[in-house]
Amino acid sequence: MVSLGDIRAAHDRIRAHIHRTPVFTSRAIDELLGANVAFKCESFQRGGSFKIRGALNAVLTLDDREAARGVATHSSGNHGAALAIAAGVRGIPAYIVVPANAPRVKRAAIEGYGGIVTECAANVPAREAALAEVVERTGAHFVPPYDDARIVAGQGTATVELMEQAPDLEQIWVPVGGGGLTAGAAVAAHGIDPRVKVIAAEPSRADDAFRSIANGRIEPMRNPATIADGLRTPLGQLNFDILRSHDVTVELASEAAIIAATRLMFERMKLVVEPSGAVPLAALLEASPSRRARRIGVIVSGGNVDLEALLEILKNPGGY
Amino acid sequence: MVSLGDIRAAHDRIRAHIHRTPVFTSRAIDELLGANVAFKCESFQRGGSFKIRGALNAVLTLDDREAARGVATHSSGNHGAALAIAAGVRGIPAYIVVPANAPRVKRAAIEGYGGIVTECAANVPAREAALAEVVERTGAHFVPPYDDARIVAGQGTATVELMEQAPDLEQIWVPVGGGGLTAGAAVAAHGIDPRVKVIAAEPSRADDAFRSIANGRIEPMRNPATIADGLRTPLGQLNFDILRSHDVTVELASEAAIIAATRLMFERMKLVVEPSGAVPLAALLEASPSRRARRIGVIVSGGNVDLEALLEILKNPGGY
Repeated sequence: MVSLGDIRAAHDRIRAHIHRTPVFTSRAIDELLGANVAFKCESFQRGGSFKIRGALNAVLTLDDREAARGVATHSSGNHGAALAIAAGVRGIPAYIVVPANAPRVKRAAIEGYGGIVTECAANVPAREAALAEVVERTGAHFVPPYDDARIVAGQGTATVELMEQAPDLEQIWVPVGGGGLTAGAAVAAHGIDPRVKVIAAEPSRADDAFRSIANGRIEPMRNPATIADGLRTPLGQLNFDILRSHDVTVELASEAAIIAATRLMFERMKLVVEPSGAVPLAALLEASPSRRARRIGVIVSGGNVDLEALLEILKNPGGY
Repeated sequence: MVSLGDIRAAHDRIRAHIHRTPVFTSRAIDELLGANVAFKCESFQRGGSFKIRGALNAVLTLDDREAARGVATHSSGNHGAALAIAAGVRGIPAYIVVPANAPRVKRAAIEGYGGIVTECAANVPAREAALAEVVERTGAHFVPPYDDARIVAGQGTATVELMEQAPDLEQIWVPVGGGGLTAGAAVAAHGIDPRVKVIAAEPSRADDAFRSIANGRIEPMRNPATIADGLRTPLGQLNFDILRSHDVTVELASEAAIIAATRLMFERMKLVVEPSGAVPLAALLEASPSRRARRIGVIVSGGNVDLEALLEILKNPGGY
């Protein structure tokens, strides 16, 4: 499927174009959890999230003829912006299909990075039809957002860096949506040190990965009503297979804990994170102490949050 | 007054107890300013601001007999928290006189770091009387917040680190309130490289340093009505003398620019900064391009901001 070698190769391919994001720690949070937690802050990554890693790996593995016609995807969020940046690095066009109800700032960000936006109605058939039309018309290469070996290999590079920056981790907690970041983390962590346990953190209100792992087959996402908007996507099949083969377990986080974690990172760590990026800390706060190791790594997936939305979230009193 | 040697000695004294805070850059802000700007983020410092540097230097220079009786100061903000942390490092008591109208979170932070709080009425005579009483009763050593050679030497260590982390800077922009950080920056920068220009950034609504430098004598602060609450303090005499002898100039920032800069750092850099920490960027945004060098360093003084207050500030539309 995907190997540590694929991740190392992806790292060599993308390294010059991405940030080696910093790892932060917090005495206050360590005391709260009774653990040492190293936060790998992909909020400081180019484009504001880890997504550039996979998108760039996919774009840079295309041969020149394929690449010349550009790349295309559908996204209302970080993947669209990341693919636009990645295409810019290679000097090729990026066609991004965006639902009409996507926040204006997200669309503006994609265009700011040079992406060519096509709007579609906000439903799956309309999105697929719009993407098919764009690909047909331009000959662009489709780069899926997460369920793709090149994407998984790219996202795995975040975990390789984290394990270099914070040696001797016992657990790595990663937010899970489509599963690209988590699958990459599992392959990277176990390839480097099989004793490291990878834990997927998921909102209780978007618990398809939890149900899928529990039942041994992909379970559908049902009306994901979580503020962690990056994690409303269903788990991909490839990623599910990788998670299972690496014994990844899933820990859930309530909406209250996600809000509290976002607020904690803001107040104590002075970090702007999107709610999805705070889900691992939220799950850690709610997990019984026996499920938390002493030396924990966390991947903070991104910092792209609409300011007004974040202000609404942070108005809620913190519970931790 | 204070020499680079004093700053190097302070650095050796405090290094093991402070963070070497990271330097961040932003493509978006570089494009906006047409310059390369390196932001030294003291928001990630212990206690959430640069203040620990000076406080720790003062605490660690006391001899054992002096130190045993503890240290005392008056502060409603970062210096009080910093002195409490510094005293904790040495295992001695810290007595902090806090005005009754200080935000609860600030008082809670001081107590959280082990500081012993005495409340006083919110005026200068009451504050001085309360401090005198505490010093008389306990025999504690008074550590002033900024107008003190040990404090200046400690604060100068931030600039030493910045110049190591971002070589070849032409200008260093520093927020100025009481002047300890700026005076330390001037001594450090000119000691290391006399060609580096240090620029003090000050709110237009708290422009006593601007007037003092212009008139060649300390001018009083008049009703400082700025959201940059850390910069409402008047410039100290020692610091004024250092600023003058190092040809430090002052650039002003409007309240609108301070808000816009706080918002820019939040949205583009994913950094939580207190408005005072955004004042250099605000002044850079308002300065004519001829006053901005190509390679600029900025000291972001801190990230301690009341959450609700920040939310109010960030509600304002950004103007840049």
